[in-house]
Amino acid sequence: MIQASICTIGDEILIGQIIDTNSSGIASKLGELGIQVTRMLSIGDAHDEIVRSLREELTHHEIVISTGGLGPTKDDITKAALAELSGSKRYVRNEDQARIITEFLHGRGLDVLDINRAQADVPENCEVILNRLGTAPIMVFRFPESTFGHPATLYSLPGVPHEAMGALPDVMDDILRHNPLSGITHRSIMVFGLAESALSERISSWEDALPEDMHLAYLPNMLTGVRLRLSVYGGDRESNLRRIEAEIDKLRPMLGELIYSLEDDTLEHTVGVLLKSSGKTLSAAESCTGGNIAHMITSVPGSSDYFLGSVTSYAISVKEKVLEVPEETICRYGVVSGEVAAAMAEGVRRLTGSDYAVATTGLAGPSGDGVNPVGTVWIGVAGPDGTVTEKKIYHNDRKRNIERFTAASLDLLRRTLLRTVGSQC
Amino acid sequence: MIQASICTIGDEILIGQIIDTNSSGIASKLGELGIQVTRMLSIGDAHDEIVRSLREELTHHEIVISTGGLGPTKDDITKAALAELSGSKRYVRNEDQARIITEFLHGRGLDVLDINRAQADVPENCEVILNRLGTAPIMVFRFPESTFGHPATLYSLPGVPHEAMGALPDVMDDILRHNPLSGITHRSIMVFGLAESALSERISSWEDALPEDMHLAYLPNMLTGVRLRLSVYGGDRESNLRRIEAEIDKLRPMLGELIYSLEDDTLEHTVGVLLKSSGKTLSAAESCTGGNIAHMITSVPGSSDYFLGSVTSYAISVKEKVLEVPEETICRYGVVSGEVAAAMAEGVRRLTGSDYAVATTGLAGPSGDGVNPVGTVWIGVAGPDGTVTEKKIYHNDRKRNIERFTAASLDLLRRTLLRTVGSQC
Repeated sequence: MIQASICTIGDEILIGQIIDTNSSGIASKLGELGIQVTRMLSIGDAHDEIVRSLREELTHHEIVISTGGLGPTKDDITKAALAELSGSKRYVRNEDQARIITEFLHGRGLDVLDINRAQADVPENCEVILNRLGTAPIMVFRFPESTFGHPATLYSLPGVPHEAMGALPDVMDDILRHNPLSGITHRSIMVFGLAESALSERISSWEDALPEDMHLAYLPNMLTGVRLRLSVYGGDRESNLRRIEAEIDKLRPMLGELIYSLEDDTLEHTVGVLLKSSGKTLSAAESCTGGNIAHMITSVPGSSDYFLGSVTSYAISVKEKVLEVPEETICRYGVVSGEVAAAMAEGVRRLTGSDYAVATTGLAGPSGDGVNPVGTVWIGVAGPDGTVTEKKIYHNDRKRNIERFTAASLDLLRRTLLRTVGSQC
Repeated sequence: MIQASICTIGDEILIGQIIDTNSSGIASKLGELGIQVTRMLSIGDAHDEIVRSLREELTHHEIVISTGGLGPTKDDITKAALAELSGSKRYVRNEDQARIITEFLHGRGLDVLDINRAQADVPENCEVILNRLGTAPIMVFRFPESTFGHPATLYSLPGVPHEAMGALPDVMDDILRHNPLSGITHRSIMVFGLAESALSERISSWEDALPEDMHLAYLPNMLTGVRLRLSVYGGDRESNLRRIEAEIDKLRPMLGELIYSLEDDTLEHTVGVLLKSSGKTLSAAESCTGGNIAHMITSVPGSSDYFLGSVTSYAISVKEKVLEVPEETICRYGVVSGEVAAAMAEGVRRLTGSDYAVATTGLAGPSGDGVNPVGTVWIGVAGPDGTVTEKKIYHNDRKRNIERFTAASLDLLRRTLLRTVGSQC
């Protein structure tokens, strides 16, 4: 298996100012090609450290991908280090990138300064992949077997995340062209409603019976549930896919509606697809989730096709006046109750005229209500066929509770839609 | 200056499944102690790689902090590597941590299995800092000068972020007790409304006149603006603070209300403090921000004291019916207009009876309205003294636009509150 290392260059990561998200994105893509990432490294903007560290990584890996250290005011350090590493004696200007730089800055109404133009200058012993989203070109250094004892390639990418991620398809193409990769075939099965351990127990007989060359990974995430990833290395892609799908068909009856997608997907997107395909509309009434359900739903492009709006009813007066939750329901059952969740969902459905509505009332913390434990949420979903409610109890962390409440609400909504308007994926 | 390295252990980071946030949090804390982080590293769950990499880091750094590799099913590998590294021949059980493990699992209604109890077993040559938030103890290995050519300490922390962050105060105390740290004194100045480059130009005369031993850092963030951090290493903390504050006093007139806090703060928290201290209440009406303003405001604990609620009016019908925006205003000025933003703010203020209200209408993208460019937002803030509106134009990225619109809205709200109820920080 080809091994790779990912290296970020820049003081801003070492001082904790920014979190490195590039390395994770690059690692995912390399994994899809069947390349194993065995190290990630962050180093500062210092010539000797850059030369020493990259040399070390190239000695132990066939592919090294670096990001960062290429801004207009800093790239002297990184580029000089790359020139030394590659034995380049001079820089050459890449005219295509120079044109992109000019267009890029003019498009923002900015003048092109010498330091901007100099970003198109690269060490002579490198190939360039154009950066169409920014100013710093992607530099590719190929080292013969004699240099590090094995053929090795260094890709130097800009640090700005959308530029680094934007360059990845071209970088992956280059890797595929230059390496004998057998490739990897995989499918994801998105599952919500079971913790990793409970899921593993539930499907253990299926897992044990998987073909030897088929690899199963559990990838849990608080917002999207557990992603099961089935992979096969090498072989013919089409026949691999057919074999993987045959295994998924055996898994379906064990999980039923807990499976919400066979893509790398989110609950809010799945809900959107169900609504859009059935021509139905949605609204929300939020207490403890404070707007986060609406925020997640509207983070999906095109959500205005089915999402009419929502009411965040933090104050009881808003629950009563805007959502028309009867004062008596609140007095009798308490604000945190299935009855109030149902009345909120029905209220916002009436108010907006939507087909479906989802509502939450609960205690995200830190303060409680003296009756229910912090972490309690009641979720209501109202639709043309009536209203369902569910209670969940999580833990004692406000931000995590808001996220968990939101995910559980989207999931109850999804299951309700599935039963009324949807078809199993 | 004492140098440190941070190392994460675990395959889940290398395959890109999770993003490492621990290293950034640890780096920030070390920076506050005046310790320089010169490397961060991620390696997999493999014995030889753990031993080799930690040995290498300890050779080049006085302090190495590792996170991860300590889950109940995986800690055999990491612990065996740590035992080898420290020359430990056997494990000893830490009874205090064993008790915490029992309480922790019982509290979740779970049985204590042997693999859980074994988490309290640590290599004999280490000291333990108790982990009160989870099961894996923090292990401290102190190496004499003879081992790596300089005294070196390795701290092994659990990988779960809230456990790792929860352990940091104890770890920092231990570092302070065992190292001759001169300490660092610093203050943050939170600025919103100017890009880093424009801010730097505005305050260049002040920056140039700073005392030589005072260090200024620009730490920009999309959501919170630019944090200016003024630091002095060594010396007496009280007199350093007085000197830093004298410089901040000179800076104030250059920035005025662009400065929103002298703590490491957020806009939603600052808004909350202004509302709470004046006993005023708030509501929101959101179109293009889709609930994110309410979400940010309610992410602050105690926000129910001043936040009454909000309406997300994605559909025009909700704007007209719930917020009572006149149809004529929408026809005449368009949905994305200052007039509609003002009417939305006034409508939700009326609906909820709040003292203040903030509203947004705009185009987050990807689709536009044929009139305004994608990235346009109109913000309205209504209060007892009338309504103000502001227009901003950002770029072509839906998720980033929602975040930028939200931050700009919180800032207009903050400036309005400052003029009517607040006092400059």
